[in-house]
Amino acid sequence: MWAVAPPLPRGPGLGWRLAGGGGPSCGGAVAGPRAAGRTRPGPRVAPGGRAGAMELLSALSLGELALSFSRVPLFPVFDLSYFIVSILYLKYEPGAVELSRRHPVASWLCAMLHCFGSYILADLLLGEPLIDYFSNNSSILLASAVWYLIFFCPLDLFYKCVCFLPVKLIFVAMKEVVRVRKIAVGIHHAHHHYHHGWFVMIATGWVKGSGVALMSNFEQLLRGVWKPETNEILHMSFPTKASLYGAILFTLQQTRWLPVSKASLIFIFTMFMVSCKVFLTATHSHTSPFDALEGYICPVLFGSACGGDHHHDNHGGSHGGGGPGAQHSAMPAKSKEELSEGSRKKKTKKAD
Amino acid sequence: MWAVAPPLPRGPGLGWRLAGGGGPSCGGAVAGPRAAGRTRPGPRVAPGGRAGAMELLSALSLGELALSFSRVPLFPVFDLSYFIVSILYLKYEPGAVELSRRHPVASWLCAMLHCFGSYILADLLLGEPLIDYFSNNSSILLASAVWYLIFFCPLDLFYKCVCFLPVKLIFVAMKEVVRVRKIAVGIHHAHHHYHHGWFVMIATGWVKGSGVALMSNFEQLLRGVWKPETNEILHMSFPTKASLYGAILFTLQQTRWLPVSKASLIFIFTMFMVSCKVFLTATHSHTSPFDALEGYICPVLFGSACGGDHHHDNHGGSHGGGGPGAQHSAMPAKSKEELSEGSRKKKTKKAD
Amino acid sequence: MWAVAPPLPRGPGLGWRLAGGGGPSCGGAVAGPRAAGRTRPGPRVAPGGRAGAMELLSALSLGELALSFSRVPLFPVFDLSYFIVSILYLKYEPGAVELSRRHPVASWLCAMLHCFGSYILADLLLGEPLIDYFSNNSSILLASAVWYLIFFCPLDLFYKCVCFLPVKLIFVAMKEVVRVRKIAVGIHHAHHHYHHGWFVMIATGWVKGSGVALMSNFEQLLRGVWKPETNEILHMSFPTKASLYGAILFTLQQTRWLPVSKASLIFIFTMFMVSCKVFLTATHSHTSPFDALEGYICPVLFGSACGGDHHHDNHGGSHGGGGPGAQHSAMPAKSKEELSEGSRKKKTKKAD
Repeated sequence: MWAVAPPLPRGPGLGWRLAGGGGPSCGGAVAGPRAAGRTRPGPRVAPGGRAGAMELLSALSLGELALSFSRVPLFPVFDLSYFIVSILYLKYEPGAVELSRRHPVASWLCAMLHCFGSYILADLLLGEPLIDYFSNNSSILLASAVWYLIFFCPLDLFYKCVCFLPVKLIFVAMKEVVRVRKIAVGIHHAHHHYHHGWFVMIATGWVKGSGVALMSNFEQLLRGVWKPETNEILHMSFPTKASLYGAILFTLQQTRWLPVSKASLIFIFTMFMVSCKVFLTATHSHTSPFDALEGYICPVLFGSACGGDHHHDNHGGSHGGGGPGAQHSAMPAKSKEELSEGSRKKKTKKAD
Repeated sequence: MWAVAPPLPRGPGLGWRLAGGGGPSCGGAVAGPRAAGRTRPGPRVAPGGRAGAMELLSALSLGELALSFSRVPLFPVFDLSYFIVSILYLKYEPGAVELSRRHPVASWLCAMLHCFGSYILADLLLGEPLIDYFSNNSSILLASAVWYLIFFCPLDLFYKCVCFLPVKLIFVAMKEVVRVRKIAVGIHHAHHHYHHGWFVMIATGWVKGSGVALMSNFEQLLRGVWKPETNEILHMSFPTKASLYGAILFTLQQTRWLPVSKASLIFIFTMFMVSCKVFLTATHSHTSPFDALEGYICPVLFGSACGGDHHHDNHGGSHGGGGPGAQHSAMPAKSKEELSEGSRKKKTKKAD
Repeated sequence: MWAVAPPLPRGPGLGWRLAGGGGPSCGGAVAGPRAAGRTRPGPRVAPGGRAGAMELLSALSLGELALSFSRVPLFPVFDLSYFIVSILYLKYEPGAVELSRRHPVASWLCAMLHCFGSYILADLLLGEPLIDYFSNNSSILLASAVWYLIFFCPLDLFYKCVCFLPVKLIFVAMKEVVRVRKIAVGIHHAHHHYHHGWFVMIATGWVKGSGVALMSNFEQLLRGVWKPETNEILHMSFPTKASLYGAILFTLQQTRWLPVSKASLIFIFTMFMVSCKVFLTATHSHTSPFDALEGYICPVLFGSACGGDHHHDNHGGSHGGGGPGAQHSAMPAKSKEELSEGSRKKKTKKAD
């Protein structure tokens, strides 16, 4: 269970309430930056000259902007966008529409996993009740309403409205705001339990940001689909990768290795995610902004381009004993072809 | 962990002990109705006339009957019936007998899942130790003895006895008594943790009533069988559906929306379940009593007959992008044929 | 969460710290025998004569030896051996080397499961955070370093060194020391929560000893491999079986049915495991020391040789209704052929 938030020495008006994260009584709340209070020296420092004052003002206003941004409540509007985009992606899955007609209960459960998978996974990792977040009746009802409207609205009106590209881009942008907050809150939560648990913090932030993608095999199984030859960890989509990198950044911030306030990091990382995701969605692009970076780092660290679907380096054999390895390697080689095919398609869909 | 039962203001003799549900020290116990105490105004109200007295008497006796019924201890006899019928269904599974000969440990584990799957799932949802119920040594030993007798008794005597239809019908009826109690206790337990968690209560009651069925994919995996194209949520059997509806009813009762005492609801719902299940088992019937109701509601809500295996409405295409959807739709269409075949067979077996 | 260790009446210098087992602050620690203190009557009893003194001395020295052995800290050296051997087995898996090149994150996660799977499973069973052990940064970093060296060391130098048979035998022996300690600590931990939970203690000890083997299906799924027709419970390898028997022995000891000190049992069982595993590894043998015992017991209890891959007793049909059973039995019969083939290969690898 959640403990109460730690005492806030200097921020009576900060309004820090842990957003989501499994708390039974916080149905989408304000994630405010605790550390942010320490980075506002502005009003107390006497400005030396005009240039200093201007600089200070700009620094102050950026800090204030980030702080205000991190105090915006998520619940009705941003959460709604999150639900809409998540359930849209469910509707894009082959067979999802038919499933909703023939098996509404399974379809509803899948929709809930798409909306709240991140909470379920984080609760699983941290030993809390898996069903904890489902005590937020208002969130569940809102997500259920979105599910009903997207799948069963007469003439598919709702679906057509939210799929209209400019509208969709707004929702996609707002979804990323929720995602970054979830990562920050997840890491704060993990830090509360494990003060020096770097890996715990990174893992919690990652699952909070990635959500249902990390459990996609089991979400598919619920719909009667089983694709064991691929999973999100083998073929990370951009949001999953970005959540991982974001979780590392927020963990560094939480443990004071990154000298920046949490509010500023939330603001900057949100801007990055929003611009990337909106660009990728608008252009139907499949490239990831991290490809260039990984192209430099992976060959140095791991001796090969990682994550790519490069068929030309498939000759690497298995080191284990000849017999079984040789027999099995035919199968993986075959499935790899399918798999890279499948992953390319998946990326197309995800980036859509 | 379980907290103690809430204080009972008026029932020193009610003997409310939470039955099962994961408590380490309550190996099958009496599930008594707390709310029931409030619905017995009889002895205190002075009867006005003869008709009133008769009416009162009948109300009192029904209430008393329900109350007595809800106090009957489950442990030795009813639990035994539950174990017998559950492990019988395991023996009906293709390959189960051979499995018991060649891999007794796997067979025993499957039998335990069949008997205690509902506790494991509820513990998982509510964040309690998965293995919690296994501290009830007497229940485990009883279930193990039933498993041994059903699979390894000389001349298959035990199996032949309990499969004799009149005997089996009695056991099936007693199993339903246990199922309804489990639903009621599960919802009481969830209500204790989440006072306003409607969805949590319904989910807990549902998994407590459905048991191993909801985890059948993983139970099969333990036996080396994998049928990803179907699962219990896609093709709900009668007990699973009835557990879901029962969980909704008991949740309404728990939150005082249904103006009826818990003892009466347990009594009425048990009578309904017993009569349905005994009828279905005796007639080897596959029809569900809910079919008519769903036939009315589903077309209104979801625009199509849900849950049915109607092949004529298979033309519904996927809305997601053309390429992958078109490619994948061939596979699901094929597997759907197998699946409806399989589910019909499953229903045959379950109703048996 | 873990409670503190119970008070130690007579052992201020015993240094009992629960090794591993999910404690957030005990990154590989000393598992000392609490009960052992009670079996050292030596120094207080006045020896009657020379023979008695000699006998006493030998008893004392064996007890002292076992006690000292059970106090040896595991963390840097023994844990390192455990990680090396575990990740070696991962590298033996077909496709693992290629996976590490193309998907380093998935490969690292698999390596972590191989090293810490036992903690994850035990935490799952006992309702503790799955990620609990990952707060031991030093263990995780050590395992990650081993993973990196085994998969990415230039010229495969590290791999070649640790695969050199004499070196490997030492590591294999040290791994067994860790395994036995884990079983003992797991049972102590379960006993702390469930004083009379025999089945809970055995299960916890078993998963602590077996580790990733019991979750091999899901570990394979992470690598994109899915072999549902077999699992470790259907085809137990020697370490899994030995862990089960060891868990039973340690449970008997913990509940005082086995009149031997925990330190002595740890010592004796470690010697047994080390000698068996070193012999099996050195001779590339596939026979299990338990085969003879099981050959006697299984026919008596279960009417057939269990666990074996004997094709001649495949005629056993399914008792469930004719139609579906007959249809399905063809499939299992076919998969059984593959399966016994697969398991034989697996055994070859495991014993390697």
